[in-house]
Amino acid sequence: MEISIRPIGTVINDVEKGSERVDWSGVISTLEIDPALAEGLEGIEEFRRIMVIFWFHLVEETLLKVHPRGDPSRPLRGVFSTRSPTRPNRIGVTVVELLQREGNRLVVKGLDAYNGTPILDIKPYFPEDESDDRPPWVRGG
Amino acid sequence: MEISIRPIGTVINDVEKGSERVDWSGVISTLEIDPALAEGLEGIEEFRRIMVIFWFHLVEETLLKVHPRGDPSRPLRGVFSTRSPTRPNRIGVTVVELLQREGNRLVVKGLDAYNGTPILDIKPYFPEDESDDRPPWVRGG
Repeated sequence: MEISIRPIGTVINDVEKGSERVDWSGVISTLEIDPALAEGLEGIEEFRRIMVIFWFHLVEETLLKVHPRGDPSRPLRGVFSTRSPTRPNRIGVTVVELLQREGNRLVVKGLDAYNGTPILDIKPYFPEDESDDRPPWVRGG
Repeated sequence: MEISIRPIGTVINDVEKGSERVDWSGVISTLEIDPALAEGLEGIEEFRRIMVIFWFHLVEETLLKVHPRGDPSRPLRGVFSTRSPTRPNRIGVTVVELLQREGNRLVVKGLDAYNGTPILDIKPYFPEDESDDRPPWVRGG
């Protein structure tokens, strides 16, 4: 079984691959969403934090065991117990701060994705421990 | 651009579509992972909670605006500001409690996915507000 996914948009920032040891927490990115999908963003600006699901498009190898942080002095671990991008499906999930929405563009802080990264989905974010506080309309459908 | 994804495993539980108003928080599921990928699970059992990324395979329609919880009395919202499955890419992300690992099978509690749901990825979970406490090997690669 294969699932075919068409990205909903693209990450735009000034971090290109090869920029080593980036402090991603301070990186500002623009999420440029397909204008045809822009109405799906309505209401997102009410959230301070959103979850960005993206595709590590520059990763070429799959490793089932990884040295955490790429540090050979750390023992190998299964890739599913880390957030290493070298996973069978190169899906990244990161919670970011939503600074601004301008139509089909979201300005966010803290996304650990290079310029040009395909965006697969965007969701509102609530920490699990705050789940009782989340608005009743969050779980839709 | 299209991205092709092959699921890493399948959800097994006793909830079939048509079972309305399920209390998902109590549902026990087995995540049966492709045995060829089982070594990628090593170390996952150290986590109490994991993030399951899955595909809403039974959803047929895409709606950019949804009535939260399918309740027509609630005003329409953009789908990306809800967790409705009727999204352009039918990706679900849920944090569940990991009860047990047996080889390539993970027994979890609280996954809101029907029997037979394809699993795309599994990651360790830490609430953002606890991110300073997470072990240094969590962000691998």
